[in-house]
Amino acid sequence: MPFPHGNGSFFLGGGSIPFPVHSAYTGTDGQQKVVLNLNINININRSRTMENLPAQAARNLAEIRKQKPLVHNITNLVVMNYTANALLAMGASPVMAHAISEVEEMVSFAGALVLNIGTLTEDWVESMLTAGKKATALGTPIILDPVGSGATSLRTVSAKKILSQVGVGVLRGNASEILSLRHADSRTKGVDSIHGVEDAAQAAETLAVELATTLAITGPVDLVTDGERTVRIANGHPLMASVTGTGCTATATIGAFLAVDPDPLSAAATALAYFGVAGEVAAETAAAPGSFMIKLLDALYTITPEDLQHCCRFVNGQ
Amino acid sequence: MPFPHGNGSFFLGGGSIPFPVHSAYTGTDGQQKVVLNLNINININRSRTMENLPAQAARNLAEIRKQKPLVHNITNLVVMNYTANALLAMGASPVMAHAISEVEEMVSFAGALVLNIGTLTEDWVESMLTAGKKATALGTPIILDPVGSGATSLRTVSAKKILSQVGVGVLRGNASEILSLRHADSRTKGVDSIHGVEDAAQAAETLAVELATTLAITGPVDLVTDGERTVRIANGHPLMASVTGTGCTATATIGAFLAVDPDPLSAAATALAYFGVAGEVAAETAAAPGSFMIKLLDALYTITPEDLQHCCRFVNGQ
Amino acid sequence: MPFPHGNGSFFLGGGSIPFPVHSAYTGTDGQQKVVLNLNINININRSRTMENLPAQAARNLAEIRKQKPLVHNITNLVVMNYTANALLAMGASPVMAHAISEVEEMVSFAGALVLNIGTLTEDWVESMLTAGKKATALGTPIILDPVGSGATSLRTVSAKKILSQVGVGVLRGNASEILSLRHADSRTKGVDSIHGVEDAAQAAETLAVELATTLAITGPVDLVTDGERTVRIANGHPLMASVTGTGCTATATIGAFLAVDPDPLSAAATALAYFGVAGEVAAETAAAPGSFMIKLLDALYTITPEDLQHCCRFVNGQ
Repeated sequence: MPFPHGNGSFFLGGGSIPFPVHSAYTGTDGQQKVVLNLNINININRSRTMENLPAQAARNLAEIRKQKPLVHNITNLVVMNYTANALLAMGASPVMAHAISEVEEMVSFAGALVLNIGTLTEDWVESMLTAGKKATALGTPIILDPVGSGATSLRTVSAKKILSQVGVGVLRGNASEILSLRHADSRTKGVDSIHGVEDAAQAAETLAVELATTLAITGPVDLVTDGERTVRIANGHPLMASVTGTGCTATATIGAFLAVDPDPLSAAATALAYFGVAGEVAAETAAAPGSFMIKLLDALYTITPEDLQHCCRFVNGQ
Repeated sequence: MPFPHGNGSFFLGGGSIPFPVHSAYTGTDGQQKVVLNLNINININRSRTMENLPAQAARNLAEIRKQKPLVHNITNLVVMNYTANALLAMGASPVMAHAISEVEEMVSFAGALVLNIGTLTEDWVESMLTAGKKATALGTPIILDPVGSGATSLRTVSAKKILSQVGVGVLRGNASEILSLRHADSRTKGVDSIHGVEDAAQAAETLAVELATTLAITGPVDLVTDGERTVRIANGHPLMASVTGTGCTATATIGAFLAVDPDPLSAAATALAYFGVAGEVAAETAAAPGSFMIKLLDALYTITPEDLQHCCRFVNGQ
Repeated sequence: MPFPHGNGSFFLGGGSIPFPVHSAYTGTDGQQKVVLNLNINININRSRTMENLPAQAARNLAEIRKQKPLVHNITNLVVMNYTANALLAMGASPVMAHAISEVEEMVSFAGALVLNIGTLTEDWVESMLTAGKKATALGTPIILDPVGSGATSLRTVSAKKILSQVGVGVLRGNASEILSLRHADSRTKGVDSIHGVEDAAQAAETLAVELATTLAITGPVDLVTDGERTVRIANGHPLMASVTGTGCTATATIGAFLAVDPDPLSAAATALAYFGVAGEVAAETAAAPGSFMIKLLDALYTITPEDLQHCCRFVNGQ
């Protein structure tokens, strides 16, 4: 029986690496052989030093403004408008599309796919799976925001289903959402009293390895880890918690950064720094949430790569 | 046959009173007896004097900021974002969830349930009924906004269905929406030419008794009645009518107040005063609807309980 | 067999003309005859000179503020809130309703119907067809925004389906969306490299005739044509492209103008001038997209008919 020709993809470290089947032949031993074109350079990214993050943040923002990547969002009904406006303000091109009959076509044009389970229903989860599998096959980076995971079983089950069937590059949520996604037999299971980002660090690193993805846990200080490398981001402003969908918008921002930066860890960390700096800039001229949410959109538009490099605050390690 | 053990609840005056079954036994007459722990103190609320409303308004706002009650909204697609931002700005915690498979779980965490039939479809009505029945059983206060009732039969029928199956504590709408919900054989049926809040007062009091709920009819002057007690609220600003979803947001605000105030009448009246004062504050620095809607969110955040007590304008009786 | 009595409608020039069947009888030749009350005065509109457009713009805006026409929108999830606020700000009365069981009833109250296929799913398309057919039968003007047509086949097919089954008065999109709707055997098919509004002019005029509708193609300079008459509108501001849903909101604005102006060409051209002037006014006090989108709503509210007549910039012909 001949080896089935076609392409495939590896799932590795939370990203996916598509590979072409180069050729197939019958060996001298009479067995079918297949030659794969595997050119895995993920270790190049993995070795990127954390010291480079401010410069990388500036490069990523400049690239978004230059490339205007299409970011395909299947997101919740509450934040669609604000998320789209944030993506436009930063220089990306948002598209919202959730019909199961068009998501594969739409995601094939996209530089990144954002999946967000707020206000989900079962049919939206099916669309997310369909889009996510297509993006995985294409090597398009995917970010998942498990809004409300841990609160209802529909949300927890749906987030786990997406994680198991889709090559999620970054998982962004608050500490309780992220930790609700541990396996039933998780080694982190014993850590039962997790309070906030700081306490969650060790559990997060273990979980990143378990889920084979990069975690972005947001809070007063954000934490990003792929299990090997951990970075904290100390930007942001308390008013961000008084505007609906700032977490979801942080997720979409990471989506735009993933479209221009192949390393999920630096994409997530630099995106959160950018979003946090925008919050700080907004708070300079707005003291209440209505004005603040508008000034935040303004700041996403006006912040230059140089501003970002100057203002971002990364803290390495544990 | 032994009396079935378990808990139950009474529907009374538009609210519901859960009660535990204390014990069951066979009486000397050979019949099954049940001892209920009924401790109905609703008359305490009913006797609350209207003079207390400004102080109650301040207490309610302070309690919302302290308790940050979770308000579960099943609401329309137009106002989801604005409503969520308003709830956050005032100090409450909004959640939007409409999947029929999760609404019972979600509402069980909530301090109040907001049902709003704008942009409804049949499946959303089913979710509202499911969530509403669960909230009723739990004694969680429920507010219904019958957006567009009277305009299409889907809306009128859906609103009536919810009212008949769910223990709605407050019904908030404009005069024509509310009066469209009179029974076919209503004693108020003769009142065919109702124009605005003032003309609707008598019809409203009769209807509140018929529907066994508290009515909050908004307009230039708002009217709240439970059939026995009637109060008018003279706060607000004409620009509120130029922003979409201010009615729906008033409804969500009452939802937050219901989570901290067990008397539907004072919860509704104080919430409308607070929302109206916010409109007045917003209009001090905004003369057109875009700026106004943003300043309104700001005002919901910045108004203190003392401000509210000072600025609210209640008018008692007919 | 008697001729079936009843009413019908003609589709002509992109609008529809309902006509009553006056009477039916058997002629002296033994054949069934039908007498129609046809009173077609569309040529009166057709002969309107382009020189009148600034004055017509002012009249249309004044009429919207006076009549407050109900504009029924079946639109996408991203722009519902902003579109509703824009319609309210300009003086119209928006309603969003998409349940297939209520759209016929709702559209029967409306002065115009806005169909927008962004974030569409199959069931929403069915609702659009149902509402659109009812509006066609009633002679209510219809505007279609084929968001994303050409990008996915669901969108292209849906837009073509609506165009073929509904009497669309105006079709508003960007150049690539509009040109994706050419028939497979279109005479304009040869024009394969269309870049922007200017290059699209000739193709647009041919397409307007093919589709028997008025096209409104927006870009840095907008172009409106019914195939016979072509006008360009040179208002607007680049920041409009940095706010999500400005195209959709332009569409809704045309919807409001169609409710007060029976000529689709002048309704579309004057609406786009008004929306563009609002963008110019907004840009006077806002330099970034968050503030800009709020000031744009303010400008829709504050611009007077006289302002509009003074500031609009129409350019006739090719």
